Amino acid sequence: MTLKLGVIGTGAIGQEHIRRCNNVLQGAKVVAVSDINTDGARAALQRLNIDAQVYQDGHEVINSPEVDAVLVTSWDPTHEEFTLAAIAAGKPVFCEKPLALSAEGCRRIVDAEIKHGKRLVQVGFMRPYDAGYRALKKVITDGEIGEPLMLHCAHRNQSVGENYTTDMAITNTLIHELDVLRWLTEDDYKSVQVVFPRTTSKSHAKLKDPQIVLFETQKGIRIDVEIFVNCAYGYDIQCEVVGEEGIAKLPEPSAIQTRKNARLGNALLTDWKDRFIDAYDVELQAFINDVKAGELTGPSAWDGFAASVAADACLKAQNSGGIEPVDMPSRPDFYAR
Amino acid sequence: MTLKLGVIGTGAIGQEHIRRCNNVLQGAKVVAVSDINTDGARAALQRLNIDAQVYQDGHEVINSPEVDAVLVTSWDPTHEEFTLAAIAAGKPVFCEKPLALSAEGCRRIVDAEIKHGKRLVQVGFMRPYDAGYRALKKVITDGEIGEPLMLHCAHRNQSVGENYTTDMAITNTLIHELDVLRWLTEDDYKSVQVVFPRTTSKSHAKLKDPQIVLFETQKGIRIDVEIFVNCAYGYDIQCEVVGEEGIAKLPEPSAIQTRKNARLGNALLTDWKDRFIDAYDVELQAFINDVKAGELTGPSAWDGFAASVAADACLKAQNSGGIEPVDMPSRPDFYAR
Amino acid sequence: MTLKLGVIGTGAIGQEHIRRCNNVLQGAKVVAVSDINTDGARAALQRLNIDAQVYQDGHEVINSPEVDAVLVTSWDPTHEEFTLAAIAAGKPVFCEKPLALSAEGCRRIVDAEIKHGKRLVQVGFMRPYDAGYRALKKVITDGEIGEPLMLHCAHRNQSVGENYTTDMAITNTLIHELDVLRWLTEDDYKSVQVVFPRTTSKSHAKLKDPQIVLFETQKGIRIDVEIFVNCAYGYDIQCEVVGEEGIAKLPEPSAIQTRKNARLGNALLTDWKDRFIDAYDVELQAFINDVKAGELTGPSAWDGFAASVAADACLKAQNSGGIEPVDMPSRPDFYAR
Amino acid sequence: MTLKLGVIGTGAIGQEHIRRCNNVLQGAKVVAVSDINTDGARAALQRLNIDAQVYQDGHEVINSPEVDAVLVTSWDPTHEEFTLAAIAAGKPVFCEKPLALSAEGCRRIVDAEIKHGKRLVQVGFMRPYDAGYRALKKVITDGEIGEPLMLHCAHRNQSVGENYTTDMAITNTLIHELDVLRWLTEDDYKSVQVVFPRTTSKSHAKLKDPQIVLFETQKGIRIDVEIFVNCAYGYDIQCEVVGEEGIAKLPEPSAIQTRKNARLGNALLTDWKDRFIDAYDVELQAFINDVKAGELTGPSAWDGFAASVAADACLKAQNSGGIEPVDMPSRPDFYAR
Repeated sequence: MTLKLGVIGTGAIGQEHIRRCNNVLQGAKVVAVSDINTDGARAALQRLNIDAQVYQDGHEVINSPEVDAVLVTSWDPTHEEFTLAAIAAGKPVFCEKPLALSAEGCRRIVDAEIKHGKRLVQVGFMRPYDAGYRALKKVITDGEIGEPLMLHCAHRNQSVGENYTTDMAITNTLIHELDVLRWLTEDDYKSVQVVFPRTTSKSHAKLKDPQIVLFETQKGIRIDVEIFVNCAYGYDIQCEVVGEEGIAKLPEPSAIQTRKNARLGNALLTDWKDRFIDAYDVELQAFINDVKAGELTGPSAWDGFAASVAADACLKAQNSGGIEPVDMPSRPDFYAR
Repeated sequence: MTLKLGVIGTGAIGQEHIRRCNNVLQGAKVVAVSDINTDGARAALQRLNIDAQVYQDGHEVINSPEVDAVLVTSWDPTHEEFTLAAIAAGKPVFCEKPLALSAEGCRRIVDAEIKHGKRLVQVGFMRPYDAGYRALKKVITDGEIGEPLMLHCAHRNQSVGENYTTDMAITNTLIHELDVLRWLTEDDYKSVQVVFPRTTSKSHAKLKDPQIVLFETQKGIRIDVEIFVNCAYGYDIQCEVVGEEGIAKLPEPSAIQTRKNARLGNALLTDWKDRFIDAYDVELQAFINDVKAGELTGPSAWDGFAASVAADACLKAQNSGGIEPVDMPSRPDFYAR
Repeated sequence: MTLKLGVIGTGAIGQEHIRRCNNVLQGAKVVAVSDINTDGARAALQRLNIDAQVYQDGHEVINSPEVDAVLVTSWDPTHEEFTLAAIAAGKPVFCEKPLALSAEGCRRIVDAEIKHGKRLVQVGFMRPYDAGYRALKKVITDGEIGEPLMLHCAHRNQSVGENYTTDMAITNTLIHELDVLRWLTEDDYKSVQVVFPRTTSKSHAKLKDPQIVLFETQKGIRIDVEIFVNCAYGYDIQCEVVGEEGIAKLPEPSAIQTRKNARLGNALLTDWKDRFIDAYDVELQAFINDVKAGELTGPSAWDGFAASVAADACLKAQNSGGIEPVDMPSRPDFYAR
Repeated sequence: MTLKLGVIGTGAIGQEHIRRCNNVLQGAKVVAVSDINTDGARAALQRLNIDAQVYQDGHEVINSPEVDAVLVTSWDPTHEEFTLAAIAAGKPVFCEKPLALSAEGCRRIVDAEIKHGKRLVQVGFMRPYDAGYRALKKVITDGEIGEPLMLHCAHRNQSVGENYTTDMAITNTLIHELDVLRWLTEDDYKSVQVVFPRTTSKSHAKLKDPQIVLFETQKGIRIDVEIFVNCAYGYDIQCEVVGEEGIAKLPEPSAIQTRKNARLGNALLTDWKDRFIDAYDVELQAFINDVKAGELTGPSAWDGFAASVAADACLKAQNSGGIEPVDMPSRPDFYAR
């Protein structure tokens, strides 16, 4: 049975997901798309050589009887609306981050989903599908390094533009760590503090860069995440877990080691799109398979909500300079791990 | 359009390819299979939850009007017969190694294919589809290390059984290097010599292990390949290219680095099946896509023939202790690189 | 000219320094030693095959006309007294850490030295003489990675005994980072905060382990140092400097990489004495050479004072849970960098 | 007791050894030097601030009653003469490589030493004193990787001048491997073969570069050594030992790992003088200590002879293209390992 997908929003991310689902992954095809710019939508479909219905309104995609499940890849402020509509229509929905613009918005989606009685939402957090993170988690759950006590992480971009502001380090950049570190530790954040080193001369007036975000989790794990979006040297994700018995580290992306010009080494990535490129395929194939199997298992609306609550605390901590609590309600049975 | 595949031989490799084509890859489905043991074939299909016609004779698969293209994964001695039959039927055929049991057999397939007038054969050499080898080749063709002068390679198994004999180091183990190193260097072998270190105490009477195979190519590149099939420590493939400007090395498989018990390091593979596991998916998807596009681009019958000619010279060199020429005819335009 | 040394305290460290100066280094010999336990002192000299005068009182060593310079390796509480006495006698003195038991004690030594008018004191902080740290500093001062913005460090022991308490993580363990990180960054600490992850089950009631010490320097560099003294896996020192242009990392100790038992890796150190073993030779040879040249250049009494002031702030921070200022007076011209 | 040294030949190497013995090492001082160019000798001593007798004739150094032991660092063709003279005078002699210009010359020295009745000669092969090689040997002798079966080695220079000819790859470059690999394996060479890849465009008419030298040892170990003296990228020594249980590799020189300009890596050496710089100190200190202890333990005249015999076979193999025997007489008890 081929799962019939509707895609809301045919911008860059939407087009990539359309390409994946139709040309790379198994068991699904895109039958309907929507975008405010329907000409652009049609052009995209033509480029991808895909035959699908074009609508201007995402709700038409959701309500189309041809559509079994929905991908939301539209403008961020519309995510909550379309996700709620998909739940109302009883259709599984893969919603790209952010699930909603606020914790409250995420909470509305959680409540709607619980009321529906069955999980319908998968949030587009791809790192839990990255082979490196999965291998790292396996080392931890296999008990190889004992109970985790500390995590040392970094999220570095070569550079960002003038419209990237201090808060975006949390909402756009750290948001991925906020999800994957909860998944890795099977824990929730308890408090957060943000400290600022001297700002790099490569930043601009509206961006204090780098930043270091310090978490304490409910189990007492201490996590530090360095966010450095004008690091100059490359796109680099680091994650080291210090346990009672030893340490495990996220692998570097595979690369050819060369000896040349008196240097031994390898190239680093520079484009964020390359770092987790395989994980996008894996997360969408998992969504497709889970929908067909009748049970979603990926990052849930609760995970989207948890990341949003944590992000809010981080933003508060950026401004207060103090230790801010992360007021996370207890996990409903509906979302039992 | 879904490519309809027939699979001849439903042993371990055949089942894996059936699983791939039906459940993982895009654009194809298995409609017919054959095996001398039809009960085993049916059981396999059941396990894989696949609905396909079951025959006892591979020729029935080849001749079935339902079948667009054929995968030959049967007992080695039958590969030549089925591949020739597929060519006679004008159907694309993916033939697992070995293409034939002898260079002459490979030559017959080459001649039949040339006579047919269009490439129909892809040989199951998967290493050119391995991401690491591809990245290594790109570094070379990008000119990063200059003209290749030497290659230092190794192919190591943890251990082999009593029925693995000295010659199998060439026919079963080295055969993959024989293909991928031609592909990597875009060159052909000119001569080969085999030297034997002292035999490991972990070998048995009928197996001189390790061995070192030394090649000179037509461009003058010197290649050494250490074959060590009872190396004890793991499954390990190494390939280092020394060029005029520098050196490039095949990456180690990705692994989690740990610090534990006074050691810093990572696990090595032990099962050969894990090393190129992704490449099997890539090579078959490439076959499927190429068949649909109307032009095969993967390892050709000529490549199968070349590997077989080289293997023969290696076997001769094992016994003579001398430098044996590799009598490779010039490449027909039909198989232009 | 052979520098004639007197060594106060012939315990383990004292004996090692005696051995170094007499048998390994150039240009000095030990002519007098003292220890409360004179029998032990004689036995040590016999074992080392060294002929030297034995006193019970360190002041006799300092005042001996045979002694040109003094090494203080006695019980910590006596360091200040002997160092002040050496200054009073106008003799160069190498004082093992701690320079004194308190910042005030260090200040007294600084004042005495300034009053004397010429540097006489070198403190036994050996890390600035470690080849790895020196190479790291050179990379920074050569401008390779741009202005330092953040340092991520770790100091890990396999295990400590029952008498190692929470405060000792600062006074005994971190004290080395307190000095070398000032040297590396050519900066002083401005504030410090200590956070505690969940305590490892391998610790004991009087020791909260691990700890993370967070510094801000006067130039605005943020430094985090993980102190984990029951880490279980080995003795491990890490130091990574994140600059505006790139990152530089302290090298791992040299080790043989092996492939064995399905693992690729190398041994880690377990004994702290092995980590900086060469640096002790280098720091003492530097002291000897500097005394003969007439000008001390190693870690000064001011550096000892600065480390002590910082340590006090760390201890306060351990208890307060807050951000504690490091009240460092400005550097006297006498100790210009 | 200070060992009084005489140094024959005050060129670059001689000056370095003079500096070491007088200023760095323990227990010796240079009391006499000689050089054909006595003005140059005096200038060198002045630069090094050393007071010593200057002669024009090395025999005067050897015969001086002030001289306890001799270092021969003169023009290669004079090594045999001075070493024999030192033996005749009954004085320990450290002779820089080559011990003599021919195997016969080395044999003469061996015979003279045996006749003298006590070892007097240490040859300046420094690699057995390199910390990396020592650690590698320890891994082997500790049995960690089981019986050695194969060694894969490389000796690479960035570039050489017009006067470096094909044979010098053996006599000047490989000569160090010829000694250290015998020491590492505690074995002797049985046969050698030299193969030539295509020559690098960076070489010149009189130099076939690179070369690969293939050895079989008496225990049956197979060794390959790639010699590439215009490798362009750096000065690089590689040595990997494949044993029955695993593999051990010579460590890379310690270096700072950086992330910069989209590359992760470290600098490689370019100057051969830097690679074993510490080993020169260690080998000479060992000579000094051994002379004082009354028993030489370093590379012997027999080792010099063995390297020379092997070199001759390599040169023959370069020209014959065949497998040449290494006619090594059995080791006299005088030189028992």
